Amino acid sequence: MPSNKTSAGNFFEDFRVGQTIVHATPRTVTDGDAALHTALYGSRFAVQSSRALACALGLPAAPLDDWLVFNLVFGKTVPDVSLNAIANLGYANGRFGVPVYPGDTLSAVSEVIGVRETGKGDAGVVYVRSVGSNQRGEEVLSYVRWALVPKRDLAAPTPAPVVPALPEAVPADEIVVPARIDLARYDTILAGSQSLWEDYETGEKIDHIDAVTVEDAEHMLATRLCQNAARVHFNQHAAKAGRFGRRLVYGGHVISLARALSFNGLANAFKIATLNGGRHVAPTFAGDTIYAWSEILAKVPLPHRADLGTLRIRTIAAKDQACADFPEQGHDGKPHPAVVLDLDYTVLVPRRT
Amino acid sequence: MPSNKTSAGNFFEDFRVGQTIVHATPRTVTDGDAALHTALYGSRFAVQSSRALACALGLPAAPLDDWLVFNLVFGKTVPDVSLNAIANLGYANGRFGVPVYPGDTLSAVSEVIGVRETGKGDAGVVYVRSVGSNQRGEEVLSYVRWALVPKRDLAAPTPAPVVPALPEAVPADEIVVPARIDLARYDTILAGSQSLWEDYETGEKIDHIDAVTVEDAEHMLATRLCQNAARVHFNQHAAKAGRFGRRLVYGGHVISLARALSFNGLANAFKIATLNGGRHVAPTFAGDTIYAWSEILAKVPLPHRADLGTLRIRTIAAKDQACADFPEQGHDGKPHPAVVLDLDYTVLVPRRT
Amino acid sequence: MPSNKTSAGNFFEDFRVGQTIVHATPRTVTDGDAALHTALYGSRFAVQSSRALACALGLPAAPLDDWLVFNLVFGKTVPDVSLNAIANLGYANGRFGVPVYPGDTLSAVSEVIGVRETGKGDAGVVYVRSVGSNQRGEEVLSYVRWALVPKRDLAAPTPAPVVPALPEAVPADEIVVPARIDLARYDTILAGSQSLWEDYETGEKIDHIDAVTVEDAEHMLATRLCQNAARVHFNQHAAKAGRFGRRLVYGGHVISLARALSFNGLANAFKIATLNGGRHVAPTFAGDTIYAWSEILAKVPLPHRADLGTLRIRTIAAKDQACADFPEQGHDGKPHPAVVLDLDYTVLVPRRT
Repeated sequence: MPSNKTSAGNFFEDFRVGQTIVHATPRTVTDGDAALHTALYGSRFAVQSSRALACALGLPAAPLDDWLVFNLVFGKTVPDVSLNAIANLGYANGRFGVPVYPGDTLSAVSEVIGVRETGKGDAGVVYVRSVGSNQRGEEVLSYVRWALVPKRDLAAPTPAPVVPALPEAVPADEIVVPARIDLARYDTILAGSQSLWEDYETGEKIDHIDAVTVEDAEHMLATRLCQNAARVHFNQHAAKAGRFGRRLVYGGHVISLARALSFNGLANAFKIATLNGGRHVAPTFAGDTIYAWSEILAKVPLPHRADLGTLRIRTIAAKDQACADFPEQGHDGKPHPAVVLDLDYTVLVPRRT
Repeated sequence: MPSNKTSAGNFFEDFRVGQTIVHATPRTVTDGDAALHTALYGSRFAVQSSRALACALGLPAAPLDDWLVFNLVFGKTVPDVSLNAIANLGYANGRFGVPVYPGDTLSAVSEVIGVRETGKGDAGVVYVRSVGSNQRGEEVLSYVRWALVPKRDLAAPTPAPVVPALPEAVPADEIVVPARIDLARYDTILAGSQSLWEDYETGEKIDHIDAVTVEDAEHMLATRLCQNAARVHFNQHAAKAGRFGRRLVYGGHVISLARALSFNGLANAFKIATLNGGRHVAPTFAGDTIYAWSEILAKVPLPHRADLGTLRIRTIAAKDQACADFPEQGHDGKPHPAVVLDLDYTVLVPRRT
Repeated sequence: MPSNKTSAGNFFEDFRVGQTIVHATPRTVTDGDAALHTALYGSRFAVQSSRALACALGLPAAPLDDWLVFNLVFGKTVPDVSLNAIANLGYANGRFGVPVYPGDTLSAVSEVIGVRETGKGDAGVVYVRSVGSNQRGEEVLSYVRWALVPKRDLAAPTPAPVVPALPEAVPADEIVVPARIDLARYDTILAGSQSLWEDYETGEKIDHIDAVTVEDAEHMLATRLCQNAARVHFNQHAAKAGRFGRRLVYGGHVISLARALSFNGLANAFKIATLNGGRHVAPTFAGDTIYAWSEILAKVPLPHRADLGTLRIRTIAAKDQACADFPEQGHDGKPHPAVVLDLDYTVLVPRRT
């Protein structure tokens, strides 16, 4: 007697604009998650690394890495939104809210804000806004993503297309600065760099030099840590017959790798404030070596804050190619074949005081 | 001057029925172990994932995964019981006791309850009952296992055979329900499934669909996390000259993989109550992809509990073969060649209230 | 507009004797780090494993593994001292101070105590004393290491050579015993061995029997856990064109592997007190299987302590070769080709009371 209790995930025709999805598996984050994040990425950003330093700045503890928070919230949405996704197409209008500390419990809710069937009619793009909250209901993250999801039934009716208007970047007045933080006591020696907000210039390009090779064991540990159950990352037996012949590395793992690499050049970018946009340009596989470079897109002060400012940054990750010449697009105008990630986000950086 | 301080483990003739072995290395479990468990298995059972949710049900914190507790207790017994084992033959009569929470310290004691020399006379089966306890002396787990252990000295006398009588399953009145838990406040949306105790039927078969490929780095991390020192899992230099040419994956790792896969179909099986029996049918190696399916063997209410009931479940894990057709035995009546684990256990599931 | 904000690390001519370097990235250690250490090494030393047992001896909690502390402090020094090192040549005069507990924040400072240009003039040996401290400024570790560091500018002037005088071993009166510890209540059964201080003899050689194969994912996790950013451990894309064609395993990972293996024979060596000297004799790569053996070099009681004594130990790790015949040097008097680590250190061991 076969069962019908197994979830095969949603298909394109299961999504309706306006639909709210409360995602399963709330997750209490702990020092253990922070330690695993360090082991997986080697991140050296001082505020997240040292409780003593974080408390000296007015925070109650060392906060969790922001992209870990992103990946945890993302992971909750996968079983409902993208278990069957053909591709995770993009991100926009993401804003980090209150910091997350060990002991907090994260949960996630998504709203479907757009659907658009493809011309071929066998799939469609689903747009969702996902909101992650802590145990007090405070927003820790809100972002939009869209994915290409196949139809279960090719004969399912084509919905009226709804494509949400998405801002090119999150406006500065939506940026959340952690409560009670005061960067006047920021220690550039312990942070590992003397370069503060004033030192960066729009258009500046930074080769992060360092690189790291991805292993299957590592990307699977990272993806499971966030309870992301997307099958393409875990099942080599099925993958070997598929399009790539290999397990796909979860895109959020590449974001975290790039963030850790960006320490060399952006050590004082102590907090991610927004995710303006982003694309996983090409797949990453175990054995690939990830390099990264960044460009300062804009430099915006924050009203009423003399202690910190914002930098809008574009970080590009490339595989098996050093980034000294800032690979971005090829001669044909298409993305450079080595590029795997193109991410547009805003960071907080202490100002010279 | 060579030393005699190294332990080579016990051999068959070292075991006597009635002998009690206090195992070394008590182990304080922490949030770090819980995080590693999540990273290694991606487990999504909500009660173990969320402190907020666990506390809402009346528990003092999010308990550790039950199979992690099993593997921790098992690990303690290895240096004394099975360091030289040729095979870990089976489990029976296992009962989980009080839940284990971060901060608890686990220790283990085993009693030898049976010995039986093989016909060939070069080895014997050793039966032990192992009991894991917390720092207050409360039982967290008690189970029987038996292993085939070689003789050190082939001339050692054959002991009188003692084979313990083992129940086919743990009786319902021995099942321990966590104190003060009240499932009336259980949230099926956050738990990820609407299927409650009433919805399962005896004989129902569930293909868990998902699968995961095993890596050497992962099974070694998992096995060491439980301080299991059995050499066959770690030494490729020795293994390459051995029977399989490869490191063996610890059987408890496969149990935990199967449990995590079983979320898809058994998301509300929030607690393992008993281990009725089990066998590692065939070895697992790095590179194998593990799938799983389950059959509901029995559905037994618990006296005085309107909020939860028990399901006796058989879960079978198979390698490199999807389980849509529920592989169990081959045409010859022997186990299907893809099957690696055959586990019989009881879970607690909330009832519809 | 390329940036100049990326650190390429220091070169030989950047070091001056007497120079003090405050290293970046203070690090709060947690239960998560302890759990990862267990997963990476499977360490079974009881005092570090069990809070209950540690507290019974008078400690406030289970301390972190001493070599983890070493690797954490070492990691802090890498970006300033050895990012460009051609070789990490040796250690001397290391002393562990107050124990480190979950919740402590570690930081590190190094003083340059020697420089000596090589005859060829393209590089030089840099000697530093590195001191790790906790959030109260208490010393947790102090040790000397020296590394071969290339010159950036071959025309940079040759500094006056300064080679520090280093003791062959740390004197017994510099050994720090954890405050308030009383080994009278030490439990040899829970510790896993009956061999106490009195049972060891100078000249005794112990084959630790067990072995473990190194995986790329594991050594990278271990190295990143300590925020050690040395590129040679992480970048296969660059390594494949280099001297070895592969990523180098961080030497401190091999020390920790050897320590964990040494449990079998030295289970009661519950605390590392000094690092007298040490050399990474040959490189280790993923796929190598590490074995280890130890020799008792000296047995020194501690004044005013009837409950514990010290053993000075030499531990040698070898790859892909069992250590039953204690490999040390080859027929030519050079190190045996299988040897990768030669470490001289002092441990504390309970005495029979």
